[in-house]
Amino acid sequence: MRRVRKVRAMAFIHDDFLLSTRAARRLYHDYAKDEPILDYHNHLPPNDIARNRRFNNLHEIWLEGDHYKWRAMRCNGVPEELITGRADPREKFMAWARTVPHTLRNPLYHWTHLELKRYFGIDELLNEKTAPAIWEQTSEMLSRPEFSTRGILKKFAIRALCTTDDPVDDLAAHARCRDDAFGTGVFPTFRPDKALAVHQPAAWNAWCDSLGEASGIEVKDFDCLLRALERRHDYFHEHGCRLSDHGLNHAHGSFIPAVRASNIFNKARRGKAPTEQEHDEFASNVMLFIGQLNARKGWTMQLHLGPIRNNNSRLARKIGADVGCDSIGDWPQAAALSRFLDRLDSEDSLPRTVLYNVNPADNYVFGTMAGNFADGSIAGKVQFGSGWWFVDQKEGMEWQMNALSNLGLLSRFIGMLTDSRSFMSFPRHEYFRRTLCNLIGKDIESGEVPADYDLVGGMVKNICYENARSFLRLE
Amino acid sequence: MRRVRKVRAMAFIHDDFLLSTRAARRLYHDYAKDEPILDYHNHLPPNDIARNRRFNNLHEIWLEGDHYKWRAMRCNGVPEELITGRADPREKFMAWARTVPHTLRNPLYHWTHLELKRYFGIDELLNEKTAPAIWEQTSEMLSRPEFSTRGILKKFAIRALCTTDDPVDDLAAHARCRDDAFGTGVFPTFRPDKALAVHQPAAWNAWCDSLGEASGIEVKDFDCLLRALERRHDYFHEHGCRLSDHGLNHAHGSFIPAVRASNIFNKARRGKAPTEQEHDEFASNVMLFIGQLNARKGWTMQLHLGPIRNNNSRLARKIGADVGCDSIGDWPQAAALSRFLDRLDSEDSLPRTVLYNVNPADNYVFGTMAGNFADGSIAGKVQFGSGWWFVDQKEGMEWQMNALSNLGLLSRFIGMLTDSRSFMSFPRHEYFRRTLCNLIGKDIESGEVPADYDLVGGMVKNICYENARSFLRLE
Amino acid sequence: MRRVRKVRAMAFIHDDFLLSTRAARRLYHDYAKDEPILDYHNHLPPNDIARNRRFNNLHEIWLEGDHYKWRAMRCNGVPEELITGRADPREKFMAWARTVPHTLRNPLYHWTHLELKRYFGIDELLNEKTAPAIWEQTSEMLSRPEFSTRGILKKFAIRALCTTDDPVDDLAAHARCRDDAFGTGVFPTFRPDKALAVHQPAAWNAWCDSLGEASGIEVKDFDCLLRALERRHDYFHEHGCRLSDHGLNHAHGSFIPAVRASNIFNKARRGKAPTEQEHDEFASNVMLFIGQLNARKGWTMQLHLGPIRNNNSRLARKIGADVGCDSIGDWPQAAALSRFLDRLDSEDSLPRTVLYNVNPADNYVFGTMAGNFADGSIAGKVQFGSGWWFVDQKEGMEWQMNALSNLGLLSRFIGMLTDSRSFMSFPRHEYFRRTLCNLIGKDIESGEVPADYDLVGGMVKNICYENARSFLRLE
Repeated sequence: MRRVRKVRAMAFIHDDFLLSTRAARRLYHDYAKDEPILDYHNHLPPNDIARNRRFNNLHEIWLEGDHYKWRAMRCNGVPEELITGRADPREKFMAWARTVPHTLRNPLYHWTHLELKRYFGIDELLNEKTAPAIWEQTSEMLSRPEFSTRGILKKFAIRALCTTDDPVDDLAAHARCRDDAFGTGVFPTFRPDKALAVHQPAAWNAWCDSLGEASGIEVKDFDCLLRALERRHDYFHEHGCRLSDHGLNHAHGSFIPAVRASNIFNKARRGKAPTEQEHDEFASNVMLFIGQLNARKGWTMQLHLGPIRNNNSRLARKIGADVGCDSIGDWPQAAALSRFLDRLDSEDSLPRTVLYNVNPADNYVFGTMAGNFADGSIAGKVQFGSGWWFVDQKEGMEWQMNALSNLGLLSRFIGMLTDSRSFMSFPRHEYFRRTLCNLIGKDIESGEVPADYDLVGGMVKNICYENARSFLRLE
Repeated sequence: MRRVRKVRAMAFIHDDFLLSTRAARRLYHDYAKDEPILDYHNHLPPNDIARNRRFNNLHEIWLEGDHYKWRAMRCNGVPEELITGRADPREKFMAWARTVPHTLRNPLYHWTHLELKRYFGIDELLNEKTAPAIWEQTSEMLSRPEFSTRGILKKFAIRALCTTDDPVDDLAAHARCRDDAFGTGVFPTFRPDKALAVHQPAAWNAWCDSLGEASGIEVKDFDCLLRALERRHDYFHEHGCRLSDHGLNHAHGSFIPAVRASNIFNKARRGKAPTEQEHDEFASNVMLFIGQLNARKGWTMQLHLGPIRNNNSRLARKIGADVGCDSIGDWPQAAALSRFLDRLDSEDSLPRTVLYNVNPADNYVFGTMAGNFADGSIAGKVQFGSGWWFVDQKEGMEWQMNALSNLGLLSRFIGMLTDSRSFMSFPRHEYFRRTLCNLIGKDIESGEVPADYDLVGGMVKNICYENARSFLRLE
Repeated sequence: MRRVRKVRAMAFIHDDFLLSTRAARRLYHDYAKDEPILDYHNHLPPNDIARNRRFNNLHEIWLEGDHYKWRAMRCNGVPEELITGRADPREKFMAWARTVPHTLRNPLYHWTHLELKRYFGIDELLNEKTAPAIWEQTSEMLSRPEFSTRGILKKFAIRALCTTDDPVDDLAAHARCRDDAFGTGVFPTFRPDKALAVHQPAAWNAWCDSLGEASGIEVKDFDCLLRALERRHDYFHEHGCRLSDHGLNHAHGSFIPAVRASNIFNKARRGKAPTEQEHDEFASNVMLFIGQLNARKGWTMQLHLGPIRNNNSRLARKIGADVGCDSIGDWPQAAALSRFLDRLDSEDSLPRTVLYNVNPADNYVFGTMAGNFADGSIAGKVQFGSGWWFVDQKEGMEWQMNALSNLGLLSRFIGMLTDSRSFMSFPRHEYFRRTLCNLIGKDIESGEVPADYDLVGGMVKNICYENARSFLRLE
């Protein structure tokens, strides 16, 4: 009872936020809190780091690129003008502030206040009344040097981070970051999704042309495509890349003979869209090739599976892709994923792999699939990755960790990443760690996990940082 | 400890039933309990309200039409004779009473005792021993005027309710209710499921003929079908209808040119069943048309998706459809639903929409799909509706509210409806409100939601009544 | 607070392990703990019981056949040599002991320590340090007569158990067990999966030949196949068998005329693999026939649905099937299952049926499907069975029991089985009972279930033993 009253008197974000037991608090404060961060998957613009960008106001650093917030504002009846339209930045911020109290129980409510607290020390709840003063205070603070992108990376002890990059990108920003050696490793990730997209021949052909230029290999047949991808894979490797990433509705496991792949390539190169089946087959062969490259170089392959994207064609026409109109899909996942991983494993070409799943109904499918392809070479070789996108919130992370625990080895989990486009998202690691410690703390209190803090605290520590460090082998 | 002992000494249904924290109790008693009820979706027979029906006994008001209870009795080994057969009403009630102790942990156990308590003040647990006295007491009480249908509506503060009606219905009962102006608005809902059912040509043709008569437009071609539906839609609107409702296995998103729709119409009108694909295409075009009508008139469209109905053909032959032999289906839902909503949105014809989902494994698919089609016109324009049918119980409602919270805006939720055929079901609103307050109360106690009762209590209040009132715009 | 400290000082496996409330403890100790065990589905080798096998060490009784442990070891990076390879048994045990601390939160962690405690009285946590002494102590104890298979069955009060047997098996071991009448009924289960497997014609043909020999009916046409199966069904019945069991990806509900079934039979008998659709049709007709046999003899039919097996072809080639490379599948389940059960029900040939489901996302589909085919003949006639395989752990069992409770009648549940290949698995019944009591105990404490121990304790008792006993009618 006393504890509750104390909590109420406290700020919303207080030292023991989300930590509901003594064991949870001990785990968090003694084992998790001070671990450094390896943010091995995000969508930060590398150039913002290279040029040590500063931000003029909270709209610029917080709202400008965050389609989670846009989506919530739309659901709250805010007109597009105040979201992605031409309204004044301060007006857009005010529209967001009016929306925040309506996001109670949505992760945005926690993230918002955690971010205001950790970046600016603000304890007030954001709403229409508190917004003007918060706008002033944060604008002033953002003008200080410690709020540059590199200042932020330092503040949050980001030991290394991995951006998401197209094979045709020149990686100049990453090179500059490396040269500056300012304390955070900034690595690229090889994301060749566009190579698979033969079903959209216009965009695909344009991309193939860029790939030709970037690689110096003209993409005139299927084999050239593979060789050009390999050339870029080498180039990424030289720039420190050790991960590939793939955003797919579902895995592709319909492998075809090279001659058939060539035919599909030629058809698409002539501007004709292949059938759905041909797309699946083509993608299968390309992905197989990428998997082989990854295995050969000791990279880690990330599969992000399950969404159904850009559902709203009106907004897609108006403002483009990735604007907050994506959903969780319900594609069948198991059979194709099994065939894909098995084929690589059979050829002794299965790289370290992390499977991310956006539909929590498939957690158990993914959690079990990962366990089929361990080969004794390394602990957690194929693993079920952290709660992703719509599932990257307390409920979703708990489900993912429970599935991973029950079906595999939580102790080998490489843990959290922000997957964010925003420099305001680093407290997500804190949010994850609190959730992790709260979950395990409850188990200690109930006697389901032994109260052996060397054992359990050590596992927590590993999940926070060490597992990712040793698994991913970034340099 | 003291609290627990107190609870045990209390009646099973007590003031704080389901309210496990202080915050939950405060939210319920101070914000939820006294809100009026807007039961915007049910299957009550409007004529029972028009004629202010009274009930002779508990069988008549409680068992006669409730296939949830039938199903439980069958599972408990009760012969059909005592369920839907010719046995004496009192004997049937006794068979139900013997079944009740076997329904522990099923929502029927809670509903049963909540209903006995709220209607008749009965605190005893129903079982074979207590049944005879309860039968006597309730029979006596049911003979009193306050147990007429209108008496019940008054007792439970039902400000308005919406029944479910076929487009061919004459709505005479609704008209009479309106004329009597007895304190509860009784509105029809437009449910044109039969217009889609070309795969059952005999029933469909008979229904088309009725539609022709009701509308005054002979249904001789596809265009006539649409015009006749529109005529009835107008008629319903004049009678205060502001909602349509659709019970489908899955959404239909395979739109076809009018000429192809005409061909399918003609084929079915000649008594020939179209293929499954043709059925889907035909239904797509009809549903698109209904959606357009709804948008034009400012109605709300309800989609009830996911069941697999009438699984037991023996009982279907013997006693008909909707007798408690329905299941949750596992149809793919996302792609077709996306195409359906997107098409309407693209044409600027998407009405306010509520998506109900019977398979909880799809909660996250539905919760995210709703968020794609907000357009800034009104908060919560497309929303994920209350736990439906098999999911309309504590676990299911909590899952739905957690999904809605995590993926959208709980604050904009229009809340509960009974979906019931029975005048004994109004305490389901109380059950929902207790569950809602318990869920949020826990979050306050754990510090996940701020203990700001103006903010949180206001949200609770809105979910109980105000959101539905302002969203649905019944008059 | 005091309780927590006490727990910490206790052994990990203590009297109140998993029992987090007073009500839970009362239910477990007063109603569940002392019930005998009816282990009605497992994969124990009947010959090990017939010859009263003894075990030389912990590897032999614990690791040799347990692909759950193999899988965990592989995920922990242990090389195959130390798992299923030629390494020394003690070395393999040491590799397992090193893995155990990494299985925190996996059911293996609980099972391991529960088994060490109940068989050997060991309270220490297994790890690299404690392993040598544990190896010594257990080796010594295993040499004692009470650690023979029959000694173990006695120790755990196994009143009866049902193994899993191929129709061609001779059941000699079961006969010997019956003759010895040593206190545990040892019954066979009829598992004719191989009869359906026409898609693997080589293995299928060999099996048909064995069936011909075992039955004395040469399997030369489809009708002979059915008659041979019936002959063996009779034989199993004479040996006390009262259950069939079926391990399928999904149910088969595509019934075909006998002549078409004959054609598929002939095609496969000639060594040609039928199409996927033909396989489904053929399997439908065979399963229909088995269902009819079961109904006629009053047997119980178990359907184990949903896995995707032997995903890793490298390990399948190297060490065979069923080696820990199986997953949860995501096949559609509802429609075919509905058609299969409905067809049997329509013919008045639906036996008592238990539906097991390996994908928890389908729990609600299965939980509702079971309720469609009750017929008033017996309580719980078609029921949703205990959490299976990957779902046979605390979270999974709670989900299954919550689904069963919310959608059907928990009170009629026939409860737990080990499904195990190991004589070390009997404490799984204890684990289940603790989980059951903990779940219901929480409901009592929160007031969701009345604190009427005669009512609730009686239900618990029934689920532990009596329901299975009266439902299965083993003799």
